Amino acid sequence: MAPPTEVLTAERILEATEEVLRRHGPAKATVVDVARALGVSHGSVYRHFRTKAALREAVTKRWLDRTSEALAGIVAETSRDPEARLRAWLLALFEAKRHKAGDDPELFATYTTLAGENSDAVDEHLEDLTGQLAEIVRAGVEAGAFTSADPLVTARAVFQATARFHDPGYHREWQQPGVLDEFEAVVDLLVRGLRP
Amino acid sequence: MAPPTEVLTAERILEATEEVLRRHGPAKATVVDVARALGVSHGSVYRHFRTKAALREAVTKRWLDRTSEALAGIVAETSRDPEARLRAWLLALFEAKRHKAGDDPELFATYTTLAGENSDAVDEHLEDLTGQLAEIVRAGVEAGAFTSADPLVTARAVFQATARFHDPGYHREWQQPGVLDEFEAVVDLLVRGLRP
Repeated sequence: MAPPTEVLTAERILEATEEVLRRHGPAKATVVDVARALGVSHGSVYRHFRTKAALREAVTKRWLDRTSEALAGIVAETSRDPEARLRAWLLALFEAKRHKAGDDPELFATYTTLAGENSDAVDEHLEDLTGQLAEIVRAGVEAGAFTSADPLVTARAVFQATARFHDPGYHREWQQPGVLDEFEAVVDLLVRGLRP
Repeated sequence: MAPPTEVLTAERILEATEEVLRRHGPAKATVVDVARALGVSHGSVYRHFRTKAALREAVTKRWLDRTSEALAGIVAETSRDPEARLRAWLLALFEAKRHKAGDDPELFATYTTLAGENSDAVDEHLEDLTGQLAEIVRAGVEAGAFTSADPLVTARAVFQATARFHDPGYHREWQQPGVLDEFEAVVDLLVRGLRP
């Protein structure tokens, strides 16, 4: 139980929700469990998240945003050349997903279930990631390092072509030996295709 | 009921099995149903396929082989230039899967279930397809149209990079508007990456 003097923020509720989801699984976790973990009434939780569905969506978004925010840092490294940034971005995405899936498989399965229920949050996340990639492609075109008639179309193609290395549906493949070589082979081909 | 004078071949049993699977679904279809559809005893079916599992594997393999055989025809068109063959092969694969999924969704779902149970048959199928692609890449390298240090590695990269357009897990995307443009964007990028 948290000390009752601590202010109940949305972030604290989301942290507790993740913990409750980890403990009870997505099918059984309730708002009452979350309130109990925080030592507050369920009414207090509902003041921040109007429904259980809204709470589940928010915790899903938080999980997805953690990845996007880490990647945004690579997009912002404008002193690095675009090809190096593109490779680093794709590798960081793969590593983030691979670690989420491998280090805590139960929580990963939980979030995969939640992602299936919250397709709007997932669509936003994918838009966000594609937008980040488009920024790198655009920088590459401006620097004369890449060619692309439409950086957003090209970014989507790069994102889709690397799906095996970030789509949760492939998480079993990520623990196979040789998967990093496969990743390299796909990225090399795409980077070559981007060069003028 | 088939006329009893007709010879009971493995192919006739597999045809009947597909029909029984279509009618009853993969969970309920039995060897007795197949025998009944053919007007023979289930012992006659077991003379060709020792177990129900063997029969299910054979019918899965037959379904997968139908795609590979159609594609092998494109590999054999050695008078066409390698880039045109590569594009035609990838498009034919996408179209075959898209039609299987869109024209007869129930049978497609049935075979997706069967594929999940018969990973050896699926692995062989994927090896077969990657081998076909490698042959086109190799021809491209010999003709000076492509560059590749290892055609099999390159073929696997091309196959994995186009997963969105042949992996059954993506079948819902295949009916979306714009999917052919997305396919084109990915293939263009890969083909550019293959050029010397």
